[in-house]
Formats: sequence, structure tokens, C-alpha cells
Amino acid sequence: MEHPLYVYNSLSRRKEQFVPMNPPHAGLYVCGPTVYGDAHLGHARAAVTFDLLYRYLSYIGYKVRYVRNITDVGHLVNDADAGEDKIARKARLEQLEPMEVVQHFTNRYHHNMQQLNVLPPSIEPHASGHIIDQIQLIRKILDAGYAYESNGSVYFDLDRYAKKHPYGTLSGRVLDDLYSQSRELDGQDEKRFPLDFALWKKALPEHIMRWQSPWSDGFPGWHLECTAMSTKYLGETFDIHGGGMDLLFPHHECEIAQSVAALGHESVRYWMHNNMITVNGKKMGKSLGNSVTLNEFFEGAHPLLERAYSPMAIRFFILQAHYRSTIDFSNGALQASEKGLQRLMEGMKTLDNLPASKNSSIDIGDIGQKCHAAMNDDLNSPMVIAHLFDGLRIIHLVNDGKETLSAADLQRLKEVYHRFVEDILGMNSDQPSNRQTDLLNGLVNFMLDMRQQAKANKDFATSDNIRNMMNRLGIEVKDKKDGFEWSIK
Amino acid sequence: MEHPLYVYNSLSRRKEQFVPMNPPHAGLYVCGPTVYGDAHLGHARAAVTFDLLYRYLSYIGYKVRYVRNITDVGHLVNDADAGEDKIARKARLEQLEPMEVVQHFTNRYHHNMQQLNVLPPSIEPHASGHIIDQIQLIRKILDAGYAYESNGSVYFDLDRYAKKHPYGTLSGRVLDDLYSQSRELDGQDEKRFPLDFALWKKALPEHIMRWQSPWSDGFPGWHLECTAMSTKYLGETFDIHGGGMDLLFPHHECEIAQSVAALGHESVRYWMHNNMITVNGKKMGKSLGNSVTLNEFFEGAHPLLERAYSPMAIRFFILQAHYRSTIDFSNGALQASEKGLQRLMEGMKTLDNLPASKNSSIDIGDIGQKCHAAMNDDLNSPMVIAHLFDGLRIIHLVNDGKETLSAADLQRLKEVYHRFVEDILGMNSDQPSNRQTDLLNGLVNFMLDMRQQAKANKDFATSDNIRNMMNRLGIEVKDKKDGFEWSIK
Repeated sequence: MEHPLYVYNSLSRRKEQFVPMNPPHAGLYVCGPTVYGDAHLGHARAAVTFDLLYRYLSYIGYKVRYVRNITDVGHLVNDADAGEDKIARKARLEQLEPMEVVQHFTNRYHHNMQQLNVLPPSIEPHASGHIIDQIQLIRKILDAGYAYESNGSVYFDLDRYAKKHPYGTLSGRVLDDLYSQSRELDGQDEKRFPLDFALWKKALPEHIMRWQSPWSDGFPGWHLECTAMSTKYLGETFDIHGGGMDLLFPHHECEIAQSVAALGHESVRYWMHNNMITVNGKKMGKSLGNSVTLNEFFEGAHPLLERAYSPMAIRFFILQAHYRSTIDFSNGALQASEKGLQRLMEGMKTLDNLPASKNSSIDIGDIGQKCHAAMNDDLNSPMVIAHLFDGLRIIHLVNDGKETLSAADLQRLKEVYHRFVEDILGMNSDQPSNRQTDLLNGLVNFMLDMRQQAKANKDFATSDNIRNMMNRLGIEVKDKKDGFEWSIK
Repeated sequence: MEHPLYVYNSLSRRKEQFVPMNPPHAGLYVCGPTVYGDAHLGHARAAVTFDLLYRYLSYIGYKVRYVRNITDVGHLVNDADAGEDKIARKARLEQLEPMEVVQHFTNRYHHNMQQLNVLPPSIEPHASGHIIDQIQLIRKILDAGYAYESNGSVYFDLDRYAKKHPYGTLSGRVLDDLYSQSRELDGQDEKRFPLDFALWKKALPEHIMRWQSPWSDGFPGWHLECTAMSTKYLGETFDIHGGGMDLLFPHHECEIAQSVAALGHESVRYWMHNNMITVNGKKMGKSLGNSVTLNEFFEGAHPLLERAYSPMAIRFFILQAHYRSTIDFSNGALQASEKGLQRLMEGMKTLDNLPASKNSSIDIGDIGQKCHAAMNDDLNSPMVIAHLFDGLRIIHLVNDGKETLSAADLQRLKEVYHRFVEDILGMNSDQPSNRQTDLLNGLVNFMLDMRQQAKANKDFATSDNIRNMMNRLGIEVKDKKDGFEWSIK
């Protein structure tokens, strides 16, 4: 490739050229949702960020195997890993089978992703479907001497590990500091060292989700599933691991320790993290009451929202910031973003209808190259969008008849806009229903003009005829100062 | 309930009143697709049949837990259970990870189900996600003495089982007959008795999908997954097990044997089977070249199809036959069914727009009760549809001003039609796009009439005006013998 892709590697803390292990293949693993509740803006940001990466890698020619997991078990609630399983708790509250809760929210998550035009990953493994793989991984870590059994549970021996391998490189944490900050919590007496984390937890009698294992009837620790499933489907060393910044510590740090302990080496070549979303300047969180779900956004059903926002508005809002910057959500910001999106999509429609001239009177420049350069610079989507906005100026000049474009230039420009707006940024403009809406608008407006004309000519047979047909079809017309407004009953 | 539901139990070979074990809960397990290829008409029939049951049980007040599995591993190819794993073979041919193939076809299956308006089940467990449960079940069968290990594989000991328990009750097969028909096939030397079936198969070196087990690295036998997953999510005894008639033997017969061997009793209280689909009178099969996928139906992309058929036409076609009758597919039958559906949906639209009068001049009868009686008689959907067609007569009489209906009667009639057509038969009528399509048709046809009229009046300004507008909007008009045909470019 002429202009190589650079991505920011959280491990080295610098942009590095992306060079996959086995071109043209590229492996990508991203931490997916915990399916015990509806997805919120934070889920949307991670999904859209890595959808952008997936689309771009595919566009520039890689055959990407994209694995995004479903966490349906073993996500422990408190820091000490001694809490209940979140899903099992919710299920018991609702008197439901946990897998019924999981299915319900997985279906809703998939629907949200479809609304956001996030492509489905190549493989979407469930943690509950990979218990054997996780047990095998625990065995390897035990055999290597980096874990111990205690009362039916198995813990990662962080103290021993940290004496032989660096720990905290990804997150920049120092074990001694963490140790001094740690508190003794319920169940920690099973551990040798307060920061040891669970690889397998013996189930309490009230736990519904449980599996047989060599140590106890229980369930795997949360950190384990990603190491097991990423290496299973992408290989013991693979290209890119992504996720939200909130997962960097302890989740991803623990993944590194598990790989090194079990396999003797790290598994991930490029760690990529999207930054967080704040709401009116504050951290988003369920307990703060400012965690708005995607369904609430799409329906305008939350006290923080002035009105509903479409999935495409949310997607565009996310892409208008660089993935490593924080985004602050506010109604004002979202509405500004919505207007920008409208301007861009209308500009593209105008472009599609521009007439070709014999020659170009204006240089269309190299928008395509500029956009690629921005994407190659660590997926700089706001810069891509800025270049696309710049190009609108030319489109409007040609549309106003002030400049001309040759058929070849017009074709190039259309190709660039459709490639970046639709294929890479993933904004879907031309759903069949949009095409139908356009046609409907065109026909009704023509009909209203005709009726107006007929009235002016005192051809009342025609104007009545049109009015009757509209009534029959349920098209309601209201007279306005500057013409008509119509709607469908 | 005043009129109880009767269903045909394949085990007793008669209609029985449906009385669930734990009302208001009802448990339903249905064999889902093997996801190594696209779904065809047979898959649609099973899915629509049990969707009808699920909708009806829910409608009459049961809280239904509906489990429909995804077979993503261990579905052996040949009768002797000695063949390769279908999915692994396909994956190797395509140089893909098996789970990537599985994900691809699972996504497409879900999309097809959505198109057919089949509701998602409460839980959709994957066989590959329940290996531990299957291993535990094998242990129970071994402990009970009804299975043996042979060369790393475990087989169900049918000879021993049949000496203590009846075998073949569901399918009406006699073991001695089956024995005399059986042929010695590759790998059967591991078995004590030719009809013994695999519970666990040791993987050949070329098998990609494999799991550790107490006996070998291998994979579970196909029959096992349904016993493991149905009893896990619905209990060791549960209400209804459904599937296509082709699964009755050996699959469901083996499920019964597995339950009796492992648990000491059968698990299923009502066995329900939908009948098969023939194509122009012949059995449908991949090798016969007459197996049309749903996507091919929706796109008209198969030599057997005269044109495309909509998902709703396919659904209605399936529901117009009783689920225990065979359906013969032909273009003629499907087109007749499509016309019927159109008549029904148009009738319902007319009904929705009927004016209320002070009194009813005609008795609307008890269509609702008749429809319920038909459903209660083993889901007699063709009878329901016949009653709904009968009612159209009244609707048209009122619409033509020959009879009148009071507001109360009108309301009752609307409620019955919407309940049965939409909620129970699951026909979705009023998608926004349908409304738009209707409007578009109305407007374009009006416009074409106007143009015709203008031409006849030698008002060429108007006819040219209309033609230009249509060109601009991309509406293409072709002259036909009996009028026009138009399409959108």
C-alpha cells in the first residue's frame, strides 16, 4: 500500500504502522457487551469505532476475521471478584432463566447494532459456550505455576507472576501502589494476595449458572473468556485487540497476564482503545441516572433528552470525534451533529444529480487522497468528515451553475463521496424507503402544481379530479402562505 | 378456558387436550436449523408451524418458554453416524473457521425468520455451547449401563436398551426389521450392534471442531444435543417437543431412548410434527436439484420459480395447509395463495374504513369463536383462513351500502380480524413501506390515466409535462396491449 495505516497502540503509547502477521488476513478481537441490560451510548461508541476499523481494513484489502464476544456469564460485580454473577442475580429477580434474559438482551443488542448500521462481526462467541476452553486455559496456567486452587476456586497468582514478568505495562499501574490501595473484601480470605483475580469461582448455592469443573461446580472469572475466545479463533498471537478505555484496567491487563502465564508470551500485537463518553461534562453511569440507552435515544424517552435522535445521528455524532478523544453528550451537540449530517447527505444527493459538462472549470482536488490520509492517521474520522464538508463547496458552485465539471471529474467525486460516506463511515443514505419517499414527494408536489395550474385555467374538472384522487389515497393537503403542505393520513 | 386446545400427539397418535405441567407456564422445544447452508422451504414450514403454536399459546394466556436450538456441530452425515461432521467439512472446503461459517448462516437464518415474521424464541441455544451438558448426559447414560466406550467413542447400547424398554413407539419401527435392513458401514466395527448410535465421537485428525472429554478429543453425537438442551432449559419432563416429520426417526426416537436411559423416564409429554413439502409432487432434496432456498424464493432466483414470491406469500401458503398435511409446492399454488392473501388483506383494509351505522342490518355471527374452535382443533389454520374469507362477504356488503353495521359490531369484527390475521397467523400487513407502495401505485396510475386522457384530448402540453416529470423521477413506463406497465429505474 502506498500510504500505510498507522494506529495508536495503547501498549507502546505511540502510533505504529499496522503490519498484520498473515497478510492479506487480519485478526481483530473486540470486547462485546454484557447482555444483562440494554446497550447505552458507551456500547454504541465501542461498536461504531471498531466497525469503522473493520470497514476500513476490509476496504483497503484485508480479509478481516472480526471476533466480538457476548459476555453472558461470569461478569463479577465487585472489584474483589467475590460478588454475585450479575446476570444470575437479575434473572433471579425477574424469576427468569438466565439464558432467557441473555437471549432477550442479545436480540435487542443486535437490533440496535443493525439500526446503527454496525456490520455483524465474523464470529460472535458466547462466554457460556466456551467453558471447556476456559477450563483448559486454567489448567495451563495452573501447570505453569501461576495459579492456585483455594476452596474450589482458582485464583491467578499475581504476586508470583509479577516477580517474573512485568505487570501493569498497558495501564501504567504499579503493583505496589495498587496493593496499598486495595481493601479487604468479602471472600478475599481465599486469596493469597488481595489483587489475585479469579480464574474459576466455586458457585454459591444460590448461583443458577454453573458448570462442572475439576475444582468445583462453578463458573469462570470474567477476564478469562476474552483470552480463551480470542486465541481460539484468531491464534495464540493475533493482530488487534480493541475495547473501551474503561476495560484497559484491570480487564486487559489481566488478559495480558493470562496469556503470558499460559502461553509464555503476549497474544496481542496492537491494543486499541476508544475513549469514554461524558454526559453534560460528567462521567456516565447507571448510579448517576445519566446513562441513556440507545432505545431511549431513538425514542426520545429519557428526561435528559429534548427529543428523539435517529440512529444515524448518533453514529455521525460518534464519528465526528476522534475515537481517542472523549465525547461530551448534550442535546445541543447532538442537534448540531444532526444538522451537519443532513447537510452532508443533501450535498451528496445534489452531487448525484449534477449535470456533466464538457470540461471542468474548477479543480476538484484530491479529496479522496486526503480522506485516505486522515483514515491512515489512526482513523481520523473527524478529519475525513471535514474534507467531505470542504468538497460540498464545489458541489454547490456547480449546482448553482457557477462552475462546471466534466463527466470524468463528476464520476471521481461521486465515487469518493459514496466510498467514504457509505462504505467507510457507514452512513446509510439510500435505503429503499428513502427512494420511495423521494418519489412520493416528487409525485405529490407535481400533482399539487397541476391542480394549482388547472384552477388558474378554470379547468375545475381537472382540479376536482386531482383533489378526489388525493382524498381516496389519504393524502391530506393544507393551504399555507407560501404554497401547500401535505401529509399522509 | 372454555374451549380447550387439543393437539395431535405423535406418540399416542391421537388428538389430546393440551394440559401443561405448570400452568400458566408452558414449555416448548423445537429442533432448529443446522447452520451450514441457507434455509429452504422445509425450514420455513417448521418455523412457521411452531411460530403459530407459540403465538397461539401466548395468545390464550400461557407464559411460554420457547427453546429452538442451533445445530452448529456434530450433525453427522450418514446413517451410520460414522461420517464427517457436515460443518467442519464445509469449512475446510472454504478455508474458513467453522464458527465463521456458522455465524454467517445463523445471521442469514435470523434474517429469513424476520422476513417471515417468525418471532424469535425465548432461548436459542447452540450445540457447541453445551458440550459440558452433553458430556454429563453421556456419563449418566454410561452409569446407567446403556452405553459403552469403544476406541475413544461412546455408543448408545440399543440392544441392551431394547431388552428393557420399548424402542420404536414414536415412529412405529420394529428393531428387528431395522436390524435386518441395516448395512455394515465404515467405522461400524467399533459398535456392538449395527444400530447403536454415537453419543461421543473421537475426532479424526482432520476434524477441526473438537473438544476434550473423558474419552477422547472429539464431538458429541447429533441426537444428544436436543436431549441435553431441552431438559436443561425446560426441565427433565416438559410439555411439547416439536419438529419436522423427517426428524421423527431416528432423531426423536433416539432422544426418547436417551432420556429414558439417563433419567429413567421420557421427557416429552406431547410430541408434535409438521409434515413435509413436496415440489411438483416430488420429495424435496438437495441432490434432486429441487430444494429452493428462501432467499431464492424472495428473489425469484431459481429455475423452478416463475418469479419472486414475498415472505408473506410463503407464510400464507404454509398456513393455508394444515401442518400435518403435506404441501405440494408449485408456482400455480403459490400464486393462488398470493391472490388469496391479497384479497384478505384488502378486505381487512376495507373493514378498517367502513362507516358505522346506528344499527346492524346483518348478523356478523361468531367468526371469532369459529376461528378459536379451529385453532383449538389441533391448530387448524386453513379452517381459520376459510372463516376469515367467509366474513369478507359481510364486509363487502356493508362497503357496497347493501347492509349496515353498528359501531359495536364493527369494533368486534375489526378486533377478530386483527387478532387472527396479525397476532395469531402472524401476517404483517401494515408495514410503512407497504403503505408507501400503495400510495406510489395510486399516484402513478392516476398520472398515467391523466396522460392518456390528455393525449386523447390532444392536450400535448399536459401529456409531455407528465412524461418529463416521470423521466426526471426515474419512473419508466412501457406500453402494453392492455394498458401500461411501469417500474422504478
